[in-house]
Order: sequence, then structure tokens, then C-alpha cells
Amino acid sequence: MTRAFNFAAGPAAIPTEVLEQARDEMLDYQGSGMSIMEMSHRSRRFIDIAEEAEANLRELLNVPEQYDVLFLQGGATLQFAMVPLNLLREKTSADYVNTGSWSTKAIKEARKFCGVNVVANAEDDRFDRIPAIDTWSLDPNAAYLHICSNETIAGVQFQNFPETFSDPGVPLVADMSSDILSRPVDVSRFGVIYAGAQKNMGPAGLTVVIIRRDLVGHARKGTPSMLDYAVHAGAGSMSNTPPTYAWYLAALVFRWLKNMGGLEAMEARNRRKAGKLYTAIEQSNFYHCPVVKEARSMMNVPFTLPDPDLDGAFLAAAETRGLFNLKGHRSVGGMRASLYNAVPEAAVDALIEFMNEFEHERG
Amino acid sequence: MTRAFNFAAGPAAIPTEVLEQARDEMLDYQGSGMSIMEMSHRSRRFIDIAEEAEANLRELLNVPEQYDVLFLQGGATLQFAMVPLNLLREKTSADYVNTGSWSTKAIKEARKFCGVNVVANAEDDRFDRIPAIDTWSLDPNAAYLHICSNETIAGVQFQNFPETFSDPGVPLVADMSSDILSRPVDVSRFGVIYAGAQKNMGPAGLTVVIIRRDLVGHARKGTPSMLDYAVHAGAGSMSNTPPTYAWYLAALVFRWLKNMGGLEAMEARNRRKAGKLYTAIEQSNFYHCPVVKEARSMMNVPFTLPDPDLDGAFLAAAETRGLFNLKGHRSVGGMRASLYNAVPEAAVDALIEFMNEFEHERG
Repeated sequence: MTRAFNFAAGPAAIPTEVLEQARDEMLDYQGSGMSIMEMSHRSRRFIDIAEEAEANLRELLNVPEQYDVLFLQGGATLQFAMVPLNLLREKTSADYVNTGSWSTKAIKEARKFCGVNVVANAEDDRFDRIPAIDTWSLDPNAAYLHICSNETIAGVQFQNFPETFSDPGVPLVADMSSDILSRPVDVSRFGVIYAGAQKNMGPAGLTVVIIRRDLVGHARKGTPSMLDYAVHAGAGSMSNTPPTYAWYLAALVFRWLKNMGGLEAMEARNRRKAGKLYTAIEQSNFYHCPVVKEARSMMNVPFTLPDPDLDGAFLAAAETRGLFNLKGHRSVGGMRASLYNAVPEAAVDALIEFMNEFEHERG
Repeated sequence: MTRAFNFAAGPAAIPTEVLEQARDEMLDYQGSGMSIMEMSHRSRRFIDIAEEAEANLRELLNVPEQYDVLFLQGGATLQFAMVPLNLLREKTSADYVNTGSWSTKAIKEARKFCGVNVVANAEDDRFDRIPAIDTWSLDPNAAYLHICSNETIAGVQFQNFPETFSDPGVPLVADMSSDILSRPVDVSRFGVIYAGAQKNMGPAGLTVVIIRRDLVGHARKGTPSMLDYAVHAGAGSMSNTPPTYAWYLAALVFRWLKNMGGLEAMEARNRRKAGKLYTAIEQSNFYHCPVVKEARSMMNVPFTLPDPDLDGAFLAAAETRGLFNLKGHRSVGGMRASLYNAVPEAAVDALIEFMNEFEHERG
């Protein structure tokens, strides 16, 4: 069996070592005679996994003590509703920055619950940049300020994060679905960080929320229990049956990340991987990256060929070299190489080699 | 490796054949060089799995064409909110039958959104029965009538289902989390059937909803998108990234059920399994089942020993025989043997043999 080089945008590559362990433990978790997915979430064995996962995630991200870490369902899309439902309190509006398709969705959902001030918007620039932070028109009375730290479709990523008003405090909320754990972040600057697992943490069906504890417990009246952070925080994310197998896989990924040297090491590796690919694109007269240099994502590298008619041939030839899922999102076209943590450096090297050859043949 | 006999109430046993296939395909799904959990939910391979799962579920349950089948997240607990949010329309109250702990939770959640008429309540009987249907005080103006077809904790199960008012129609809504696919049901009698996967369908983190199409599209204004059945129905349950690996495992379980002969065969096997165990309890002067005969569940068999001080010894001795997870729910004490589809008849035989021996030694 040969493992493919998988550049999928999400659900995405999972470390081979993690899948091997999951395979080996599938029918018999540590001599129990059962799969971990056949056990109660209240069993000692599962609780050990859940606690280890939380402890390792806290250690990896250096999460301050006064934050809760929640393991939920519903994806980032459910968070688009949970954030306003829980954080609005007496406020009537929130600030949002629109840097791409995920920001746009978050804004649309928030408008169901409150006024939304779009304080910066890169739509007119076809989402090729992060609007300069000093140009944002922040509202000191906003319930919170929402950003998406990395946009998978356009391939833009925040390189640094805004300061928000501190008195009265405006919490900074970030959808980090597609770059969590790819680099260290200073969690203390955020009120809420949330992320679907299916890019850098494990399989789809698990959502991690890191929330400053003073923001928990203020859900709007009539909020469904499962959408109230306080319900989950008060029950160790086991108010109802959690997605135990996805949680277990995330625990294995967190352990793998620690073995890889933690987030400083991952960031160095990710910078190297993305740097190589962007350099190859820059040095070519054939490939083009539409994103301005300062905003380029380490996670998702979009690029185009000189003629869209070449796209099909490029993708087909790539697959013969074991390079999969390079097709760009239908809304932007071209190619996209997603380089999440689990994508090895060898995959990027193989991609660049192939790209050079393809350019030589067709350019 | 020996597989344990696993009587867990949920998350619960999964067919060994399903786990074996999942293990074998973990690193390389059908020559793709990837795990199915590493693939986009919009990839051809995953869509084939998703479509097969729906087709097989429809075939197993004989779901009429005018019903949507949804594969969601959030568990039955999220359905406790989604049902009123989507089905209330202009109505102000709904009818609920309280047959145990899950009904009670559904009622509590519904009260956030509407008036709740508890039309029958077995609480004063310590949930040892299903209140006779002809005693229920149904409201013809109710938005719907909600039941829980099987209560895992008390071990009571509906043997037949109520008629509801047909003009104006009062849809019957059933939480079938713990007995879906254990027997044939006439889906056409229900407006909505919902079930968490973690008893009879697969791992925790997947929720199946079967809903008559005319009930879709009426969500209350301000309902979060992810809680609107119309959003999911309109997108083939892929409005956002679905829990793909759990969906894949459910697909394997559905295939296994078809290979086992479908739901008539499962019901016969489940009746045989539960019948044996209830008979053994009846014939003993040692064990006692607190549930009235007519309401006894095929899925969850609660029983007590003559003295709770024996419980620890019983559980410890059972484990030495490879019989696991027999401890009753903390709210009722005693023992509980859950006999879901994936629990083989040999497990029940081994349990009965052990129970007889334990009675002989300690009785």
C-alpha cells in the first residue's frame, strides 16, 4: 500500500502514524476487547483519553487557566450562531471582518441574531489580502470582534492579530478552523477561538472551542441547551454523548504534535513547506498566486496556470505522480495545495518537482 | 485478541465485521492511498458512501419516498430543540408522553420554546410501564405528539404506536435513538423519527432524522441555520462538512444489517435474545426485573439482585467471564444488559449461564 500525497482542503490529511495506531486499536483498545468507539463516554478508559486530549491541547497552545476547552459537534458553522447567541448579552451589534468565504458565512449567520458592522472588507479586492488593521472602523460598543484567521478558499491568513478595546472589553473571536495548531498563538488575546477538527486536528464531526471563562454563562434566553457554552463547560463537554471516536483521534493527533516538537516546530516546518512552494511559483513564469505577499497562507496555497484549459491536464498528470486533491475551489478556479500539519515536506517537494516538469513540458 | 461481550448502553457494541472492514480500510480506502476520513465530503468516493447509506437505510426501514433522510450532528439532545423550532409553526404547544429519563429531557428542552402538555406520565410508577394509549389526553391543536420509543435507562419500549389526529394533522414524532433498526416500523405513521447513531447505527457523533417532507421548511424565524431541517434537506446533509467517518461506519452497519437479512431477521434475533434473558430472570428467585411485562424492552434489560451489596461481586465475576458493562444506570441501580443489534446471541447465552452460576453460588 502506498499512501497518497493528499493536498485536500478539508477533510484533509491525517498523520499516517495516527491512522496506524487507530487501525491497530480498532477492534481491541488496550486489551479491553472493544473498540474505543464501543465504550461509554463515562468509562474510565474514555475519560482518560478525553482528559489527555484536553491537557495536551492546553499545553500545545499554552492555554491560560482561565479558559475552558470544549469538545463539541456541529462544525464551525454552528459556532457562527453560538458566538452571537452567547456573547451578545445586552449588546445589539458585533464587529466582523470580511476576508473571504468563511467570514462571509459567519456574517450572514450572525445577522440572524444581531446587527453586524463589517469593519473591514476585502471583497472588492477579490479577497486577495487582509485589510490593514489600522484602517478598521472598530466600534467600542460592539459585543465582540470576529475574524477568520485563515481563509481556506482564497488562501489568505492573518499574520498578526488586532488589539481590541479593553474598557469596556470587546472580546476578539477567531474562527481558526483551518490554521489552529499550525503555529503558536497568544490565546490570552482572544475571547473565543473555535475550530472544526477536519483540517489540523482529526476527522470531521468534532469542533474545539477555547473560551475565556467570563464569557461563559450569558446565553440569550431561549438558546437551545446544546448551543449554550455553559451547558458544555459545566459538564466537561459530556452534557450529552460526545463524538467519542473523533475525540480519540484528536487525542492521537495532539500526541503526535507533541512528539513532533510542538507548535514552534510545526510552524518552522509549515513555513518551510509553504515558503518553498510560494518561491517555486514566484520563480516561474507559468504559475501565478493571486494573493498579495503579506497575506499568503501557510495552509492553503492557491495558484493558477496561464490557461484554465491546462487545468485538467495538470490535475490528471499530478495524480499519476501520486499528488491528489489539487483542484481549486469552484468559486476561484485554478489549483490549491493545502499544506496542513499532516502533509509531509516530501509531498511539497514532490509537488514542486512535478510543477517544474509540467511547466517545462507545457510552458 | 478476544472480543469482549459488550452490554454497554451506548456508545455500544458495533458488529465485529464492520470494525474489521474499517480497520482494513483505515490507511487506504479502496486503493486511494487515503483514509476515507481524509477525503472531501464532496469527493466521488465519499458521495458514493453517503448515497449507499441513505439508499440502504431507506430500504431497511421501507422509508416512503415523501420523507427526507438526514445525516446530522448534535445527538438526540439537539433534536429536542430542533423538533419544536421546526414543527411548531403557528401552534403554541405540543403533546409529550413521559416514559422515562429521555422523555423528561425532551420535555424540559421543549419548554424553552413552547407550552408542553404531558399527556401521559409514568413517573409515579417509577417508569416501569408505558401508560395505556387510550388514557392519553391528546390535544387536537397540538403542534405534534412526541414519544420516546425505547427508554434505555428504565428499559421500557413501545410495543405499538398511537394514532394521532389526522384533521388537522398532528404529526407523531419519535426519539428512536435506542431501538431504531431493531425491528420494522411503519414509517408512514410518523412525521419525524430521529436517532443518535451510537446504539444501533455506529459511533457517537452522527444523528439520523427521517422527516416527512411537508414538515420541512417551517423553522421559526431566528433559528440557527444548522438547526433548520430545510437547510440540511436542501443540501443533502452537506450544508457544512458532515461527520464523514461516522457516516461511513453507519454505511457499513447498514450493509451488515442487509446481509443479516434486514429488520425482520433482526427483530426475530432480538426477540430471541431478550426473550431468553427475561425468561431466565423470571425463572429465578434471585434476579428481578422491575418493568411490567407488556412494556419490557428488547434493547435494554434492567434487573436487580436480591441485595445491592452483591452488585460489586456480580460485576467483578462477570468481567472474569468476558461480560462487560452490565452496571445499571446510577439513577436506578442494579444491572442492565443492553442487547442492541450488534450484541451476538452468544453473548446473551454466556450472560445467562453466568447468572445461573452466580445465583447457584450466592443465592
